[in-house]
Amino acid sequence: MTYRAPLDDIVFALRLAAGEGAIEADGVYRDLADGVAEQTLAEAAKFAEQVLLPLDQIGDRVGATYANGAVTTPPGWREAYAQWQDGGWNAIAAGEDYGGLDLPALLNAGCTEIWNAANMAFAVCPLLGHGAIEAMEAHASDALKDVYLRRIVSGEWTATMNLTEPGAGSDLGLMRTRAERAPDGSYRLFGQKIFITYGEHDLAPNIVHLVLARLPDAPAGTRGISLFLAPKFLPDETGGFTRRNDVRCAGIEHKLGIHGSPTCTMIYGDEGGAVAYLLGEENKGLACMFTMMNNARLSVGLQGVALADRATQMALGYARERKQGRTPGAKETSAITEHPDVARMLLTMASSTAAARAICYETAAAIDRGHRESDPARAAAAHERASLLTPVAKAFSTDIANETTSLAVQVFGGMGYIEETGVAQLMRDARICAIYEGTNGIQAIDLVTRKIRGGDGVALAREIDDMRAIASEADVAREALRESVEALAQASAFLTTTELAGALAGATPYLRLFALARGATLLVKGAKRAQRDVDPNAARYAALARFFAENIALAAPGLAKSVIDGGASVNESHAALGE
Amino acid sequence: MTYRAPLDDIVFALRLAAGEGAIEADGVYRDLADGVAEQTLAEAAKFAEQVLLPLDQIGDRVGATYANGAVTTPPGWREAYAQWQDGGWNAIAAGEDYGGLDLPALLNAGCTEIWNAANMAFAVCPLLGHGAIEAMEAHASDALKDVYLRRIVSGEWTATMNLTEPGAGSDLGLMRTRAERAPDGSYRLFGQKIFITYGEHDLAPNIVHLVLARLPDAPAGTRGISLFLAPKFLPDETGGFTRRNDVRCAGIEHKLGIHGSPTCTMIYGDEGGAVAYLLGEENKGLACMFTMMNNARLSVGLQGVALADRATQMALGYARERKQGRTPGAKETSAITEHPDVARMLLTMASSTAAARAICYETAAAIDRGHRESDPARAAAAHERASLLTPVAKAFSTDIANETTSLAVQVFGGMGYIEETGVAQLMRDARICAIYEGTNGIQAIDLVTRKIRGGDGVALAREIDDMRAIASEADVAREALRESVEALAQASAFLTTTELAGALAGATPYLRLFALARGATLLVKGAKRAQRDVDPNAARYAALARFFAENIALAAPGLAKSVIDGGASVNESHAALGE
Repeated sequence: MTYRAPLDDIVFALRLAAGEGAIEADGVYRDLADGVAEQTLAEAAKFAEQVLLPLDQIGDRVGATYANGAVTTPPGWREAYAQWQDGGWNAIAAGEDYGGLDLPALLNAGCTEIWNAANMAFAVCPLLGHGAIEAMEAHASDALKDVYLRRIVSGEWTATMNLTEPGAGSDLGLMRTRAERAPDGSYRLFGQKIFITYGEHDLAPNIVHLVLARLPDAPAGTRGISLFLAPKFLPDETGGFTRRNDVRCAGIEHKLGIHGSPTCTMIYGDEGGAVAYLLGEENKGLACMFTMMNNARLSVGLQGVALADRATQMALGYARERKQGRTPGAKETSAITEHPDVARMLLTMASSTAAARAICYETAAAIDRGHRESDPARAAAAHERASLLTPVAKAFSTDIANETTSLAVQVFGGMGYIEETGVAQLMRDARICAIYEGTNGIQAIDLVTRKIRGGDGVALAREIDDMRAIASEADVAREALRESVEALAQASAFLTTTELAGALAGATPYLRLFALARGATLLVKGAKRAQRDVDPNAARYAALARFFAENIALAAPGLAKSVIDGGASVNESHAALGE
Repeated sequence: MTYRAPLDDIVFALRLAAGEGAIEADGVYRDLADGVAEQTLAEAAKFAEQVLLPLDQIGDRVGATYANGAVTTPPGWREAYAQWQDGGWNAIAAGEDYGGLDLPALLNAGCTEIWNAANMAFAVCPLLGHGAIEAMEAHASDALKDVYLRRIVSGEWTATMNLTEPGAGSDLGLMRTRAERAPDGSYRLFGQKIFITYGEHDLAPNIVHLVLARLPDAPAGTRGISLFLAPKFLPDETGGFTRRNDVRCAGIEHKLGIHGSPTCTMIYGDEGGAVAYLLGEENKGLACMFTMMNNARLSVGLQGVALADRATQMALGYARERKQGRTPGAKETSAITEHPDVARMLLTMASSTAAARAICYETAAAIDRGHRESDPARAAAAHERASLLTPVAKAFSTDIANETTSLAVQVFGGMGYIEETGVAQLMRDARICAIYEGTNGIQAIDLVTRKIRGGDGVALAREIDDMRAIASEADVAREALRESVEALAQASAFLTTTELAGALAGATPYLRLFALARGATLLVKGAKRAQRDVDPNAARYAALARFFAENIALAAPGLAKSVIDGGASVNESHAALGE
């Protein structure tokens, strides 16, 4: 169960995504100049390797436990959380007004990857809390910010997002949790929420819940949902927080993975209603949530990158030591890395991880530029780009995490199936990433309906132009790159013109196609940059870029066919589904 | 946690693989005439659904437990095993001389699928025991057969295969377990074996271990390995089996899945040597093992089909009930089967399962014809065909099991990540199938080196001709079929001529390519047959065949490119593996 934060690769991807000159004193990322990015990442790596990593396996084995409404985190986690808070790690990406450091999303992406690789079940707590921070920054009153946001940013308290109900998962319009107006301007909440990550725990003295609920006179569906803040402890007369609110944890789930992270069923209003405060306007709750959705989805994509990288590291480490069989011509038993079939697995893992990382960091840079570009047109374009790339970053990276962690088990062979070695845990932990924060199917539908069919097409055209430019200047695998980009262009054109059901049927292969073309071109761009800059990793980056283009991205034409020609066989196949 | 044996689909696949007229009174499968196949499968289904299935989840939760050398199986498993023995299920495919029914491999395939779908952790015990039966049938002396084989066939005792050691997994040549000759003609074994499935348990009073070991004067490597039989209890003076042999279980593994199946570390010879008897000739142990390898590998492929089918059933059942969102034009919330993206997942699952089943049953039929054809040339051709198809059946079906069980988790969404719903267990259980009985990488290497490069090419040419014939007569997806078959032909031609390292680098994509072309053509052939015969499932089979050809098999040209053009980027990428 080892992990070394791949600082070289992270800094490289960060600088590539930031763009040339962006991290200079006069650039968009001037706050990362003078080694700030490198130093921060090195500190994050130290914390991850020394504090979080040693608690990862015990978190899996012992798990969070529930008794009488209280949740106990695994041994050592309280102490680690105290160190997390002391280190001020929670404040990195939060705004300055309430104690944040306001560092860019790009740097936060690097830290997020590192923390989640070391211990995803721990790191998911602040990760989801960051979404709450953003929602509060955008929509909470100053009074609420002063009391709650400040303490969440510092890490003194944690925050949760309460969306899902038993009957309302991907379809939030079916939500039934009820909010009533109280005479003092506050609200009372009644209902049940499920799958609430860290809804209850012992890491911090107070937990601030952001809750979606429906007012009695609200319109039906998603336009009748409001966003509320309901803390576990309310302020008392002396300014302390000792008054228990009417919200409790009714139990935690027994899950496939991330056992250290308590997944809670939360009951609001069993004893007269949970006191809550409105964020934003009534019935605009879903819009409020969307303001922070891009970042949260990107963060989950980064969890995918994190576990994919860790799985690759573990598999490589094992394969270098494990000796079985002889390669053609060898006189002694070979390390299994020498066997072409094992090398293929390892290259698939390493290059897919690199491609997913490149896409995620590119997305983070687009988010940053949406905020930081002084020219409004450039800022707007960057914002559009972030919207376009976000579902790709989330879904592709988490698919890659599933594939890569499973391949790691395969490289370990029989030892991979034994829990002791720890690779099976990575596979179990990773499996949630393709599901939460919008399933990967929802991401694909978002990409196809809102981003491809819904927009003016400018962001997509720009993206494809960029890929074409890289492909045309490529030194290696030029034809494979070109084919993947043209396949994307064809499939994109088809999706904008066909009827909706046909487009929806192609959503998942289209997202994959997009990611393969974008990933392959970014890796080739990076390899070229590394060669120019005489980067010590240049040979490795070139090999990964070539392998990805010639073995992974060449699925692109087939995927385009599936999008264009395969949709009918989906929508005309009800007989096969027994309907 | 439901499962209904898909008797329609199994009988259909069985009859398609048997060939027209084969199950008539004068055909190769005359012993299956008069409804014998249907009746046997229906009885197997009853046993699976009523006895094995209810014990599947408790097997996962409680697992097998170890204490002081003894292993306790989960609650209810002893009683189920007694019923298994009473039902005579163990005897189906065993030879008649020692109490077997000698029914064809094809019928055994159907039963194996059904039992493993209901409870793989239970069914793996007789499944691996069947390999021991075959090895004993071929190589044991009559005296050993009379004492041991007879009782294994009846199910009174169970049998194990002892190959793996800590330093010898895929490479059996590195094996160190030692055998010494005893004056009475028997042998004594000394050493440690790991990953021994049901090496110790409480289901039966005696366990017969087949053990690979090395004599002191044996040549190095795989040519110095001998096969021995070492029972847990040896005969005493009165003919009872009360004398404990010097073999003990030192512990069981904590695994990702199949918790009910004890995976044992076995210690031989701690107290003077385990008494053992030679099977076959000295130093010919590996050849003896190979005699039963095809069947065991096919059986693991069938485990893949089994779990894929069960996962598909569970996902379909859930998706039909789960209502979220509205499909285009719908006025009410839709069942998620109606959403094209979910339909795509379900169709991927159902069609991949059908393709894997078709390949496995085709392989079983080839094994049968190798034994049953009266014409020696036809028998030899069938044997060659079984050899060619076996690695494809094993690896593709178990890859499909991984993909399908993971998709089932995805269809369940958040509920899929909760262990209670049982789909996560399928994913965990399935994960071993791609690893044991030769990893899927080993299967791909076997396919490429022994079956494609090693043979005279006749079996492959016949297989491709058959695919071409089906493609040329196809009513649907003709172009997709044709492309997949031609891609296979191209890649095959490349592999027979390129140097070994390049061929090895393409082994895994080639096996997948082979399976896609073979699976797609078999599904189309079946759909056509079903239409002709006015089969009540004809519309479903047609939809699955079309979907598979137009959405799954179209990966074939990309895979061929990966085989032909991608190998260099594998073998020239050592820089990327940090060597």
